[in-house]
Amino acid sequence: MTAAEAERVIIDPADPLGTISAVADRHNNWGRWGQDDALGTLNFIDESKRVEAAALVRNGRTFSLSQPFNTDGPQKGWRRRTNPVHTMTDTGMEAQHGNQGFPHGFGGADDIIAMPLQCSTQWDGLGHIFDRGVAWNGRAAGEVVTSEGDQVTGIETAADRVVTRGVLLDVGRALGPSLGREDGELPDGFAITPEHLTRVIELQGPSSQVRRGDIVLVRTGQYARTRREGWGEYAGGPAPGLSFTTAPWLHHSEIAGIATDTWGFEVRPNEFEDAFQPLHQIAIPNLGLFLGEMWDPEALAEDCAEDGRYDFMLVAAPLAITGAVGSPVNPIAIK
Amino acid sequence: MTAAEAERVIIDPADPLGTISAVADRHNNWGRWGQDDALGTLNFIDESKRVEAAALVRNGRTFSLSQPFNTDGPQKGWRRRTNPVHTMTDTGMEAQHGNQGFPHGFGGADDIIAMPLQCSTQWDGLGHIFDRGVAWNGRAAGEVVTSEGDQVTGIETAADRVVTRGVLLDVGRALGPSLGREDGELPDGFAITPEHLTRVIELQGPSSQVRRGDIVLVRTGQYARTRREGWGEYAGGPAPGLSFTTAPWLHHSEIAGIATDTWGFEVRPNEFEDAFQPLHQIAIPNLGLFLGEMWDPEALAEDCAEDGRYDFMLVAAPLAITGAVGSPVNPIAIK
Amino acid sequence: MTAAEAERVIIDPADPLGTISAVADRHNNWGRWGQDDALGTLNFIDESKRVEAAALVRNGRTFSLSQPFNTDGPQKGWRRRTNPVHTMTDTGMEAQHGNQGFPHGFGGADDIIAMPLQCSTQWDGLGHIFDRGVAWNGRAAGEVVTSEGDQVTGIETAADRVVTRGVLLDVGRALGPSLGREDGELPDGFAITPEHLTRVIELQGPSSQVRRGDIVLVRTGQYARTRREGWGEYAGGPAPGLSFTTAPWLHHSEIAGIATDTWGFEVRPNEFEDAFQPLHQIAIPNLGLFLGEMWDPEALAEDCAEDGRYDFMLVAAPLAITGAVGSPVNPIAIK
Amino acid sequence: MTAAEAERVIIDPADPLGTISAVADRHNNWGRWGQDDALGTLNFIDESKRVEAAALVRNGRTFSLSQPFNTDGPQKGWRRRTNPVHTMTDTGMEAQHGNQGFPHGFGGADDIIAMPLQCSTQWDGLGHIFDRGVAWNGRAAGEVVTSEGDQVTGIETAADRVVTRGVLLDVGRALGPSLGREDGELPDGFAITPEHLTRVIELQGPSSQVRRGDIVLVRTGQYARTRREGWGEYAGGPAPGLSFTTAPWLHHSEIAGIATDTWGFEVRPNEFEDAFQPLHQIAIPNLGLFLGEMWDPEALAEDCAEDGRYDFMLVAAPLAITGAVGSPVNPIAIK
Repeated sequence: MTAAEAERVIIDPADPLGTISAVADRHNNWGRWGQDDALGTLNFIDESKRVEAAALVRNGRTFSLSQPFNTDGPQKGWRRRTNPVHTMTDTGMEAQHGNQGFPHGFGGADDIIAMPLQCSTQWDGLGHIFDRGVAWNGRAAGEVVTSEGDQVTGIETAADRVVTRGVLLDVGRALGPSLGREDGELPDGFAITPEHLTRVIELQGPSSQVRRGDIVLVRTGQYARTRREGWGEYAGGPAPGLSFTTAPWLHHSEIAGIATDTWGFEVRPNEFEDAFQPLHQIAIPNLGLFLGEMWDPEALAEDCAEDGRYDFMLVAAPLAITGAVGSPVNPIAIK
Repeated sequence: MTAAEAERVIIDPADPLGTISAVADRHNNWGRWGQDDALGTLNFIDESKRVEAAALVRNGRTFSLSQPFNTDGPQKGWRRRTNPVHTMTDTGMEAQHGNQGFPHGFGGADDIIAMPLQCSTQWDGLGHIFDRGVAWNGRAAGEVVTSEGDQVTGIETAADRVVTRGVLLDVGRALGPSLGREDGELPDGFAITPEHLTRVIELQGPSSQVRRGDIVLVRTGQYARTRREGWGEYAGGPAPGLSFTTAPWLHHSEIAGIATDTWGFEVRPNEFEDAFQPLHQIAIPNLGLFLGEMWDPEALAEDCAEDGRYDFMLVAAPLAITGAVGSPVNPIAIK
Repeated sequence: MTAAEAERVIIDPADPLGTISAVADRHNNWGRWGQDDALGTLNFIDESKRVEAAALVRNGRTFSLSQPFNTDGPQKGWRRRTNPVHTMTDTGMEAQHGNQGFPHGFGGADDIIAMPLQCSTQWDGLGHIFDRGVAWNGRAAGEVVTSEGDQVTGIETAADRVVTRGVLLDVGRALGPSLGREDGELPDGFAITPEHLTRVIELQGPSSQVRRGDIVLVRTGQYARTRREGWGEYAGGPAPGLSFTTAPWLHHSEIAGIATDTWGFEVRPNEFEDAFQPLHQIAIPNLGLFLGEMWDPEALAEDCAEDGRYDFMLVAAPLAITGAVGSPVNPIAIK
Repeated sequence: MTAAEAERVIIDPADPLGTISAVADRHNNWGRWGQDDALGTLNFIDESKRVEAAALVRNGRTFSLSQPFNTDGPQKGWRRRTNPVHTMTDTGMEAQHGNQGFPHGFGGADDIIAMPLQCSTQWDGLGHIFDRGVAWNGRAAGEVVTSEGDQVTGIETAADRVVTRGVLLDVGRALGPSLGREDGELPDGFAITPEHLTRVIELQGPSSQVRRGDIVLVRTGQYARTRREGWGEYAGGPAPGLSFTTAPWLHHSEIAGIATDTWGFEVRPNEFEDAFQPLHQIAIPNLGLFLGEMWDPEALAEDCAEDGRYDFMLVAAPLAITGAVGSPVNPIAIK
């Protein structure tokens, strides 16, 4: 970290817009990869980075970082976000019964899903959030995302990109004890600052060093708590998460993406008196940063705690949905 | 290939059921991984296989093997298979207009998809096809897949499994010349036999050797033709594909999966007088073999033809949709 | 009411199956309209009945008995029942902006809905409920409703039928005072017996007489309470409703249908120790009776209370969805 | 018809915008029902009109004017309009098998639909079409219909309104002979002028007189042809329909709505060199006129031809979908 990277964000709780605009002025990647760029921080992942990532594969253990996609999910209908609805158009019942009309004993089952693209484990695309009407790279929001979808930064543009080194920062496990918790979980409302991130990296050791092009997976422990206690207010309620003060860290670390085990990546309630996801407003439209939400780091975190190795190869390819502003994803960590 | 592997399937065009049942008797993996198995041939992928796969990453080039997911797709409604319908619940138009009700200039776009799980690039799950009312591993089809989904072999069981060595068999490019075609495409109705596969491997060289646990990607060239000429009858019409006679090869090669650039993996019209996808009936319920369909091998095939290396690391993780009998997938090849 | 009609149902709370089967034996319309019948009690509506209904139109006032269809609805995901999700594929924002690609200033908005057919104001079709594996008219349930829908009694068969005399029985208003309530609402868990129905008819006067072919609308007041207090457990929780003891009344009254302002028509908790909607099990498969649920009788009830006239012309045509086991409906009462 | 009503529209095929704007200036109902109006021509239906309609019920025959809603429909994906997809979440197969988890032999089937609101028999809402960025009653299109739906003229506002006198103008049957056709069908591309409408009314007799508040159902015969020959280009292809020159008739007749048996109400190809549905651009945003499309008049038309009575009570209530710009409908004609 250089001096520049250590710069502090001063939050004025009564003035979210003033604070946000000041931070956006300083932490902005517009034009960094040309006027036509659609990939933002995924540009930090180059071919050598992927070779580096593949070299992390030592024992061949794999971890799906996906939560289950089904009706028993966190969503409650906010902004029409329901849980995924999966229905069968043909089943084994019919196949066994022999009424499907196929010859020679052939039988089949088939199915359909309807779901918000951000109902469960997901990537936010660069067209997902805007800052004062402006999208990533300085484009007018209305020119980018219409009712026909994202015309510029649709998630399909990232289809072949998300292969890189992943680093788990298990903030819950690392900082829990100093917070008097033995369960490896941060309490709701806990704001993870740059200092916390630095401390976790120190505690976890050298494999946790964050470098350009990495994707950082932050484990707060809230998902573990949720699995134990029920969804409750997981979707949109109080949660541990990144502090708004991490904006410089997100910028200067030159990471390709960051994901959490929470609904919304940043701490909730937000750190202003009247605000909604202010760190998103910096991260997506100003930094071009890819955010992952509702990832399940539990099995991976267990493994990392055991072997002390916190980096891994990460393949987290979004579905190639034309014009989508986000995508469900099944991120795979390979160690 | 041993003698056993070379055994020939004799097709009686007038007797699909007789032929199928004879082949199913000889080529069957039921019980091979225990009575409770839900993974079938994915069991061939072990941790050492994934280490082997990662070691294939040399230059860090990545290829998405996904077709685009959008309304302009191949489906025509057969068995309620539509193309994916992607709709926006919020757009940049509103964000720019400032009528979303968020504070401090925050704006957002959000979206929803409704799609058959097998509308485009996909994995068939083991609950997708049945043989005479029986599902993979000998279970009654009606006990496995009900209206609530696949209770046993739902695609979520494979969520963390599909990381292995991939091998491209570019049958179109390799055999085209001997068929008098310079476009690297097989004609519709062309049945790829075990002999063809062997010949392609010889022509492509040692990196094409197929081994236990591999996922084989067969390129027929039909998708390239389709992109050029329009979808036409891509979904369900005549197509090049695997001959029913490849059943022993699929069995004895001990591959973990096989994917093609066609709608239905096997040659169409099928090689019987009155039949429907007879090779599926062997592959899925009897072998427990994972089939990928409608993959896009074009960019990868171009690269392989250039560098002469036909194997790569493949990560093709299905979405973790509970109880699904298939899943859209964005398969990533890494070289 | 004849003596037969007055017969009493004795509920054994510990033996739902015994009670249900005894009642089903006595109250059953199978074969009444022939072996091929798909309409059940809608057969009670004949052409003269519709002429009678039209003659009830005196002042031309109309009342929609539909609740609003939107995301802010009662459903919570039970058995994959979500609230309706309505999304726009084109909007006035784009039309005004001029980016829709149409000539001469033409602009358009278009939309899509995804919804369970029984998510809000609805008719239950005759394929919706079964009694011990048997559907209406004695057919095997599995022969009637497969994954492809209701092959026999799909709601489309009723498309042109539901025009008849409607009668409002405002049980909440009529009996509230005797229950010490001045709000015109029955408490949750209140079981409406045949005696209650008779008493309401007496209190409301001659226009409330129920006759063959009528559709009866029972107002409990729960929906009014819900609009005031929030959905709470409206979908599936405790509610006032028909007692299981009304089975003979439902049979002998020869009504064509009955609807309530509650989620589930019958009283909840049900009147057995361990039961689920036992009166449905009589009404639909045994009587062939059409049940309406989640209707909004409020404005109509207000009008009836004012003019003392409780009968009206009712047109409540389901959508003609092929093979559906229920349908959303906008029932129109005309006075 | 007064002289004003007889005014002629002169079409300049090369200047759709000039022609449309001239007609829009003369034929416009903005402000007629106040600045807050959301109902347009439905205001022509008053209570006495409904009493008049009910008095038309003589023999109690009913006709559903709905086409079937299922996957085998006319849509081909244009602007994401698919056919309705109806899926089962529970079936009689499971109920019969006894694996649904309910007590006392209770079994159930349940279902879901996903569909464009204008995929089949439908009402266009007043937020469906705009004229140069302006919606019904002179409102800015972007203020009316956002991604959250129609904020002003959502179809739910019409939920209790559509009960009135219906008049069938069977143009196919009436004019067919003079066109040398004995099949009662107009050829595709046939433009129905005001003179044609007048002639049909004369031929059919006094019951066909069109009066204020009526809903007119125009039968071209194209749907009959489609049922016989297959959907072909029914959705968006050539079709008989209203000529742009009927704009004054639509205005001065003071009808509440008009419906046809075609996809798009007006003649196709449209009567300009480069145009898209120009009569819609007058009818909806300028007149506030409700348009019905893809209605099935066949059984009703047969009955009217037999008894010579072309008017009837019409109840065509849209679903109460909050903010929708259209709605599927099952229109019921009662004679």
